[in-house]
Amino acid sequence: MALDGVRALVFDVFGTVVDWRSGVAREAAPFLARHGVGAADPAAFADAWRRRYQPAMEEVRSGRRAFTRLDVLHRENLEAVLPDFGIDPARVPAAELDELNLAWHWLDPWPDSVAGLTRLKTRYIIAPLSNGNIILMTDMAKSAGLPWDAILGAEVARAYKPSPEAYLRTAEVLAMRPDEVCLVAAHNGDLAAARRCGLRTAFVPRPTEHGPGQEKDLAPEEDWDVVAEDFLALARMLGA
Amino acid sequence: MALDGVRALVFDVFGTVVDWRSGVAREAAPFLARHGVGAADPAAFADAWRRRYQPAMEEVRSGRRAFTRLDVLHRENLEAVLPDFGIDPARVPAAELDELNLAWHWLDPWPDSVAGLTRLKTRYIIAPLSNGNIILMTDMAKSAGLPWDAILGAEVARAYKPSPEAYLRTAEVLAMRPDEVCLVAAHNGDLAAARRCGLRTAFVPRPTEHGPGQEKDLAPEEDWDVVAEDFLALARMLGA
Repeated sequence: MALDGVRALVFDVFGTVVDWRSGVAREAAPFLARHGVGAADPAAFADAWRRRYQPAMEEVRSGRRAFTRLDVLHRENLEAVLPDFGIDPARVPAAELDELNLAWHWLDPWPDSVAGLTRLKTRYIIAPLSNGNIILMTDMAKSAGLPWDAILGAEVARAYKPSPEAYLRTAEVLAMRPDEVCLVAAHNGDLAAARRCGLRTAFVPRPTEHGPGQEKDLAPEEDWDVVAEDFLALARMLGA
Repeated sequence: MALDGVRALVFDVFGTVVDWRSGVAREAAPFLARHGVGAADPAAFADAWRRRYQPAMEEVRSGRRAFTRLDVLHRENLEAVLPDFGIDPARVPAAELDELNLAWHWLDPWPDSVAGLTRLKTRYIIAPLSNGNIILMTDMAKSAGLPWDAILGAEVARAYKPSPEAYLRTAEVLAMRPDEVCLVAAHNGDLAAARRCGLRTAFVPRPTEHGPGQEKDLAPEEDWDVVAEDFLALARMLGA
């Protein structure tokens, strides 16, 4: 059996478990229309908002900024991206920006996510290891029906992936050796960082995460411990 | 409706959700028999182990010791209490002590806990706010079927109740004002500390937590926002 000795599966979430691009576009569309830029492409808006994600976390990873949870970074990034779409954030009520910022809490899972996680949960502890913060992941789990055993991730570890502390502190909280924990992710870079920390690795491609023209993460780039086409296939391969 | 405006219910766990005394006694009985002290009362052993709980956490609360998770404190307390029962911990294999230490992970819920939590979950975010650490609460939830939305508590807050930080950081992680969070507990002292931090309060007495002769926490000692005889009554009172 692949993953012998593994007791916990931890999951990347944005892209791996849920479809952030479609979800953010869906939540942004009425906002854009209300502010007179209904011709703007909501998916392009989602992409632009997301492009500010890694640079914002890099401020924390580099030590230039104290750990700050993702909801706060998303809110800052929202204000930064609105002018690119012709909207002055100073002219939008704060409550409306707060509500749009929650778009990341209400993302829909990929079609196989809930059924696959439900099966995997019978055999493993399952938890997010996401850069999303605890209430973001909790709201998402409640609305999407994700049956997590616990909410782990950056806010518990006080470190953003791919910093080693994000993976190592997660194993520490689980009271497990790193090789008893497997990261499931659609991103080769995330898996590579986890492997460097001694975690096991499972790759599940999500070829439309970035839309129809996606060019990256279509295939495994290392010999990951498991490669599965979706979460149901992963459950089958793991005997769950 | 009681608790208007509350969005999350957080729960004391040892005593309020699960019956720690019976569970620890059940796990300890074969251990005591194996080590030649089968005449010792397993419930008295559970009580003695538990009596070292508050003093161990006080070392952390006072600042004399860095935050240390409860599994580690329980393990130290176990070695400290064994001589009182005629057992030299140095003569017991470490793996056997490690296993007995997990007794706290496999405690049984009170008869109404799972059904009540399942109903309350339809209306509120529900999470432990326990001094138990994350993997302890996760193992317990999996074995007892506790349907938490997230695992919060001392290890997330890096502070032990009744320190104010344990309550305030929990509200902060939930991105809620303290008065949007209600602590459910069988202990007047825990509720009093939560109220001082601005949380709402619900008292559910557990009159046999300490066995048949229990004298404390049999009745509410302040005008808590809600008093319910068990979790099913609490769900009814909250319209869940």
